Amino acid sequence: MNFSNRVHNMDFSPIRKLVPLSKAAEDRGIKVYHLNIGQPDVKTPDTFFQGITNYNEKIVKYSDSQGIDTLIDSFIRSLSDSNIYFEKDEIMITHGGSEAIQFAIMATCDPGDEILSPEPFYSNYNSFAKVSGAKIVPFETKIEDNFHLPKKEEIIAKITDKTKCIMLSNPCNPTGTVYSYEEMRMLGEIAKEYNLFIISDEVYRQFIFDNVPYTSSIHLTDILDRVILVDSISKHYSACGARIGLVASKNKDLMHQILKLCQARLCVSTIEQYAAANLINTMGSYITDVKMAYKKRRDIMYSGLSSIPGVICSKPEGAFYILAKLPVDDSDAFAKWLLTDFSYNNETVMFAPASGFYATLGLGKSEARFSYCTSIEDIENSIVILKKALEEYNK
Amino acid sequence: MNFSNRVHNMDFSPIRKLVPLSKAAEDRGIKVYHLNIGQPDVKTPDTFFQGITNYNEKIVKYSDSQGIDTLIDSFIRSLSDSNIYFEKDEIMITHGGSEAIQFAIMATCDPGDEILSPEPFYSNYNSFAKVSGAKIVPFETKIEDNFHLPKKEEIIAKITDKTKCIMLSNPCNPTGTVYSYEEMRMLGEIAKEYNLFIISDEVYRQFIFDNVPYTSSIHLTDILDRVILVDSISKHYSACGARIGLVASKNKDLMHQILKLCQARLCVSTIEQYAAANLINTMGSYITDVKMAYKKRRDIMYSGLSSIPGVICSKPEGAFYILAKLPVDDSDAFAKWLLTDFSYNNETVMFAPASGFYATLGLGKSEARFSYCTSIEDIENSIVILKKALEEYNK
Repeated sequence: MNFSNRVHNMDFSPIRKLVPLSKAAEDRGIKVYHLNIGQPDVKTPDTFFQGITNYNEKIVKYSDSQGIDTLIDSFIRSLSDSNIYFEKDEIMITHGGSEAIQFAIMATCDPGDEILSPEPFYSNYNSFAKVSGAKIVPFETKIEDNFHLPKKEEIIAKITDKTKCIMLSNPCNPTGTVYSYEEMRMLGEIAKEYNLFIISDEVYRQFIFDNVPYTSSIHLTDILDRVILVDSISKHYSACGARIGLVASKNKDLMHQILKLCQARLCVSTIEQYAAANLINTMGSYITDVKMAYKKRRDIMYSGLSSIPGVICSKPEGAFYILAKLPVDDSDAFAKWLLTDFSYNNETVMFAPASGFYATLGLGKSEARFSYCTSIEDIENSIVILKKALEEYNK
Repeated sequence: MNFSNRVHNMDFSPIRKLVPLSKAAEDRGIKVYHLNIGQPDVKTPDTFFQGITNYNEKIVKYSDSQGIDTLIDSFIRSLSDSNIYFEKDEIMITHGGSEAIQFAIMATCDPGDEILSPEPFYSNYNSFAKVSGAKIVPFETKIEDNFHLPKKEEIIAKITDKTKCIMLSNPCNPTGTVYSYEEMRMLGEIAKEYNLFIISDEVYRQFIFDNVPYTSSIHLTDILDRVILVDSISKHYSACGARIGLVASKNKDLMHQILKLCQARLCVSTIEQYAAANLINTMGSYITDVKMAYKKRRDIMYSGLSSIPGVICSKPEGAFYILAKLPVDDSDAFAKWLLTDFSYNNETVMFAPASGFYATLGLGKSEARFSYCTSIEDIENSIVILKKALEEYNK
């Protein structure tokens, strides 16, 4: 019985691999601080639940494959707050940012094609590429540069006749880096010179701190036909389980092709779309409040981690992750040890070993991603535990 | 700007292609009877909506990639009513039957691989295959055989070293045919002899009429490791827009691989899963009542269509579709003409031309699929209109 090479080549989620160890620790009565996942502890706004209870159709019917009008209109208005302008036929609603990324890859890549991506990157990019038979070709970004992009030559050196697009998250998961105007311009030039698309995953777009200016790929006005935007309500509105996202492009021909992918899977959950529309339309100061809360947590997480001897941190400019270099040889082994062999006052910490965010074998071995979408108290306790743990681990 | 060959090779939904013409007719004040789509007019049970309002978490969190326990348990119980037994790690919840089919193909086929399918078949099978780089290789079933399977030799003749699976819907969309025990046994033998999987789309499983016995692929006990079952709440519970389905197999190694596909897209809508679980757990006689209603409609549709001179019908044994041969050369042209040039008492009919359900060019040109998941009055009016229309069209 042979399965496809496609699935054999795919990996299990590097974040979810540690879950059995974490469950076992919890079964032993140990409290585990979950800094490993991007599941915010922020309440989903009431307007989402109101949108759900407002649904008063008697039949839960298929909706339009492109998405319901009212949700598309809501996204158009909300994107315009970030100076991002789309028309109705340039947006398709998707099952979360995940399906949006999948559609963008499928519409631009055939089996064997290559996708350039700054490394470290969101680990599921690898899965989405492999599902499509495409391959991520990484170019390295480094902690000493706060994970900003390398020189143009270094990126261009990775381009082959198989390269079809550049894919990146901005703000970046797992590093929190926000790419500057100059960096985005450079990517735009490369896209133009080498005839590439840019798949721009901006699902943390509204969480940028310290007045760092934001350049969306959609602000690269001379290559708009090459830009594919991915957005989602998951992180912005703490509604990860709603599975509502979008894929958008000013390239109407491309969107026309993506409509085929939408039609094949019929539609996105109808009621969730109505709820999401109600949510987006009635947000007031919610996003700003959440952003300020994340900034505070970022500050505590950054200064806390930086205060631990031997830990080197890149200060995140956005999102809610920090990538730190730990004084260990192998952060996978350390992550396991924290769950199997260590506790402090009957508590321990779970993080995401960074190796899962790199395509190049051996990179990121000492690095770890900590998410700070959890409470300040949890962050502070985690820092104390980590400090003790590193002392004991390195004895 | 080149898009992928993948999307170029895909087709737009043959059913949705006529939608602009239908809208234009409606704009001219003509009532259009929509016998073209499988969107039931039956009320979604209240227990679905109760399940939604019962959700009282404050955060809409990611759920487990495999699906929530309570929904998997509900499906296990409900499948056991049809003598279909699964364990917990043999089921993954999906975004409707669509994602289930997609995952089954992706886990068994690589680009260039072939999928055997009785023709006519659900048109999106073509899309799902093309997304994965695989190819549907059809074997013909004929209206004079009530679309039952051809002899074993005819099927085997289509097998190559690229063939990886047999895919079918049972009861069949678009024909309503329910395959007999002998037919299913034959497919099981072929699967064993030629080392193939069977992807068995049974989303109409509970709508079978006239005491026709049902053989699920999962009843082929000697090839259970080769069977992949697809199910969904869409049709059974009139909840098409909820997007809740499942992919299941007794082959645990295969399910372990499919888990990677589930993890890549993180999870299925959390609240919809809770609602679906509540729905499935509290159904009482709902399915039986709906089935009896569909049987009545089937009888009216079948006798009505059969009474029109020149129309040849296969009597459906299940689902809620009928495939009829019309006295026209080109049912696509006739479908268009009904929407653009014809009306009777200011009303007309929309159906799905059957060419979209065939992979072999030229087959099904005179055939049409009518769905009867609409009211008896609509069916009766549609028959009158169709009769008048065919008289006028063939003058």
